[in-house]
Amino acid sequence: MQSFRKELWFNVPARRAFINITPQVEDALAESGIREGLVLVNAMHISASVFINDDEPGLHHDYDVWLEKLAPHAPLSQYRHNDTGEDNADAHMKRQVMGREVVVAVTEGRLDFGPWEQIFYGEFDGMRRKRVLVKIIGE
Amino acid sequence: MQSFRKELWFNVPARRAFINITPQVEDALAESGIREGLVLVNAMHISASVFINDDEPGLHHDYDVWLEKLAPHAPLSQYRHNDTGEDNADAHMKRQVMGREVVVAVTEGRLDFGPWEQIFYGEFDGMRRKRVLVKIIGE
Amino acid sequence: MQSFRKELWFNVPARRAFINITPQVEDALAESGIREGLVLVNAMHISASVFINDDEPGLHHDYDVWLEKLAPHAPLSQYRHNDTGEDNADAHMKRQVMGREVVVAVTEGRLDFGPWEQIFYGEFDGMRRKRVLVKIIGE
Repeated sequence: MQSFRKELWFNVPARRAFINITPQVEDALAESGIREGLVLVNAMHISASVFINDDEPGLHHDYDVWLEKLAPHAPLSQYRHNDTGEDNADAHMKRQVMGREVVVAVTEGRLDFGPWEQIFYGEFDGMRRKRVLVKIIGE
Repeated sequence: MQSFRKELWFNVPARRAFINITPQVEDALAESGIREGLVLVNAMHISASVFINDDEPGLHHDYDVWLEKLAPHAPLSQYRHNDTGEDNADAHMKRQVMGREVVVAVTEGRLDFGPWEQIFYGEFDGMRRKRVLVKIIGE
Repeated sequence: MQSFRKELWFNVPARRAFINITPQVEDALAESGIREGLVLVNAMHISASVFINDDEPGLHHDYDVWLEKLAPHAPLSQYRHNDTGEDNADAHMKRQVMGREVVVAVTEGRLDFGPWEQIFYGEFDGMRRKRVLVKIIGE
């Protein structure tokens, strides 16, 4: 069994954004030389997500509106977490809806994807340096 | 390390449904001959889910009502994604709540489950052929 | 490839609670002797979650309030699942929002975590004995 590890770094210039990281994960897989196995891709921060969905800007707008309805950012005072001096309690909720991680099959050296699957980094508390972990195990 | 891959195909005759796929995943595991490892089961389409919960029809009805409340199908015009000619923006939301994938432990050649765990395919935009991927790694 | 399996048992004296299980998962990893691989940590019960987030009591309070808003416990009669004699339909919803499982990278014998990541058992239907599975594969 082989294993491979790589960090992807982000500094999103807005509070919220969705970034397609499929090319970076494909590069990590090529670098690893692994042909059969599993890739884990996870946010290393607890107010961000990694998820798989469609690379369609209208949908990303819809996600943003929908998540804000499910877990509004303001008023800040509605969340006890913000009493600690933070203003990101809503980001911890949004991240749970969208998920921390994805696990993707590796088959014949490629991400074993359906026709529209793309991997996204979901930032819900940006304007700071944050990381995603890519861990690959297999042969 | 061994690996095994199988696709399960579905053509659900309704927009939404929950289908117990535990027997098919157990068959794939038996076919693989793997005794210790991990199984990844994921929707290969971005408007469907794979999740683990109870095989109880009342609960599935409750999930359907609840998801429709969290992310209503209509009016279609509330979602920008539907401006592309699609009518399935809500399905992309519902799939995020229910999840894309599950990872299950394989122990002594069996799915290592608690007493009520069953694997479901959750369809949110049916009436077309769609796939689930089963990938097993181990020994 | 090596594999390791351990069950963690809980008997939460309330309907709902969040319990930091990171130390128990770290102990299991040390016991396994595995240095590179993946850890799967999953609830073995379908009305409980395993998730990764912040160990901050204000945030846990916020999660509890938020989940109760998204999927209220009462009135019991709003859920068909409760017609079976259960009173825990809401717990099956809350568990889907928070997730069944996490997969964590193992690097150099440690959980490969960002600065604030901690693993929690989320109980939504307590006052009974329930289990979490820790399965580790690697080398």
